[in-house]
Amino acid sequence: MILGSKAPKHAGHFLEKNPLFAQCSDRFWAEIASSSREIFIEKGRLLFVHGDPAERFYVINTGWIKLYRETLDGTQAVIDILPAGELFGEHSLFNGGVYTYSAEAAEGSQIFTLPIQSLKNELAQNPAFALDMLNAMAGQKKKQDNEIEHRTLQTAPQRIGCFILRLTQGDENNACTVHLPYDKTLIAARLGMQPETFSRALKKLKDETDIEIKGSSIEIKSLDKLSEYTCSACSSDIFCLDVEDTDKDHIEL
Amino acid sequence: MILGSKAPKHAGHFLEKNPLFAQCSDRFWAEIASSSREIFIEKGRLLFVHGDPAERFYVINTGWIKLYRETLDGTQAVIDILPAGELFGEHSLFNGGVYTYSAEAAEGSQIFTLPIQSLKNELAQNPAFALDMLNAMAGQKKKQDNEIEHRTLQTAPQRIGCFILRLTQGDENNACTVHLPYDKTLIAARLGMQPETFSRALKKLKDETDIEIKGSSIEIKSLDKLSEYTCSACSSDIFCLDVEDTDKDHIEL
Repeated sequence: MILGSKAPKHAGHFLEKNPLFAQCSDRFWAEIASSSREIFIEKGRLLFVHGDPAERFYVINTGWIKLYRETLDGTQAVIDILPAGELFGEHSLFNGGVYTYSAEAAEGSQIFTLPIQSLKNELAQNPAFALDMLNAMAGQKKKQDNEIEHRTLQTAPQRIGCFILRLTQGDENNACTVHLPYDKTLIAARLGMQPETFSRALKKLKDETDIEIKGSSIEIKSLDKLSEYTCSACSSDIFCLDVEDTDKDHIEL
Repeated sequence: MILGSKAPKHAGHFLEKNPLFAQCSDRFWAEIASSSREIFIEKGRLLFVHGDPAERFYVINTGWIKLYRETLDGTQAVIDILPAGELFGEHSLFNGGVYTYSAEAAEGSQIFTLPIQSLKNELAQNPAFALDMLNAMAGQKKKQDNEIEHRTLQTAPQRIGCFILRLTQGDENNACTVHLPYDKTLIAARLGMQPETFSRALKKLKDETDIEIKGSSIEIKSLDKLSEYTCSACSSDIFCLDVEDTDKDHIEL
C-alpha cells in the first residue's frame, strides 16, 4: 500500500515552519525527532479508513491528499483536498481515538507521519500550544461556515468562480492566468458536484465572465468581472480577506 | 431593541450546568457574578450584526436564536438555529474581535450576556478550560463536516427526514410522535431550502415513509422505515451516534 518508509532527516525542520507548532516545547521536538517517519504513497492509495483506530497524524510534504467519507449506499463525499504543508488526522484526538474520515493520495505524495500521543502530551503540558490549536481550529470552523453558506446560496458556476478566485491569491493585476492545482474530476468532487454539472457550470462561468480555459490554465481577463459575478452571492469580503488572513485573527491573550 | 436588562440572580448557576465551564476557576465565577446580565429579546429583534465589534458572548436561557450571514446581494444564509443552553458569539475571540455572523431572536428569548474578556482571561490562565474549549470546538467541527456532507449528498426529503430523526433522540419505540421545534419557514431556512422546495420535499418524504403531519406534530409509524430512507445517504451511524454522543468523545489527557 505504502511505497516506502524511512526516518526523515528534516521532519522537525519542516514542522517548525508551521505556525501551529511555533510554541512547542523541546520535549515535543525530541519526541518528533525519534518517532516521526516519512512515507511515500502512490496516487489512489489509501492511508487510513474512516473509523480506523488513530495512532498517528500526518503532515503533507509534497502532493495532495483527499479526505472523504462514504455513505451507507457507497457514495463518496469529499471533505477536502489538502495541499503540501497541511495536517490531517489530528482531530481523531478529540473523536474517540478514531479517524473521522478516510484519507487517500490524490497525487503521488510524500508525507510525514507522527504519533498522536506526542500531540496529546504537548496539549496537556503546554497551554500556549493548546491556545494555538484553538486558533487553528477556529480558522477551520470559519472556513466551514463559508463552505456551508456557499453550498446553500451560490450557484454551481459561482462556486467554481470562487475556487478560481482563491487561486489568484489576491493578484493585484486585473488580468492574470492561474493553473488548476489538480484535475477537473477532483475539483468537481471537492466542490460537491457531479462531473457533468461541473462541465455545464464551467461553460456558463466562461460565458458570463469571459475567462479562457486551456487545459489546466485559466486566463482571467478581468478579475473585477469574475469577482462581481461570483462574490455577489457571498457574505465575505471580496477576495475573502476574512477567510484567508488567518494571521491577523490570531488570538492574543 | 432589547426589552429589558437586569443583573441575573442565577446566571452563574445556569452556566455551571454547562460541561464546558466545569473546570473554570473561582476568579472566573466571581467575574461572571459581577458582570453578567440577563436580557429579554422579542421575536425578530437583532442582538448583533455580522462585523460588529464583539465585547460580549451569550448563553440562551429560554427561546431560540437564529445565527445568519447576509450576502452582498441581500440573501440570508442561516448558519444555525440554537436552542436553550447553547452559547453564541464566543468565537469572536478568535476572529479579530468581531462577530462572524448576525444574531436574531427566532422566538421571544431570555439570554445571559457575559464579557468576552472573562473568557479570554480564563483561557490564558486555565489550561484545563482551554482543553475543554478545544473539545467543544472539535464537536462543532464534526457537526459541520456532517452538514457539508448532507448538503452535498442527501436529497431535500432526506435532509428533512434527518432533521425529524434527530428530534426522536433515539426513542426506542419504532413508532412515535415528535413536535417541530419552530415553524416550517425557519426549518426550511435552517436546512438551506426555499420554502417551496421544503413543501415539495416534505410531501415526498411523507409519501415515501408513511409519516403523518398534523400542524407541528409528526407521527412516525416506523422509525426503521424513516431511517432506512434517510440514512442510506449518510456516512454516520444510524441515529447519528457519532454526532450526538459528544461525552464519549471527550479528550482525556
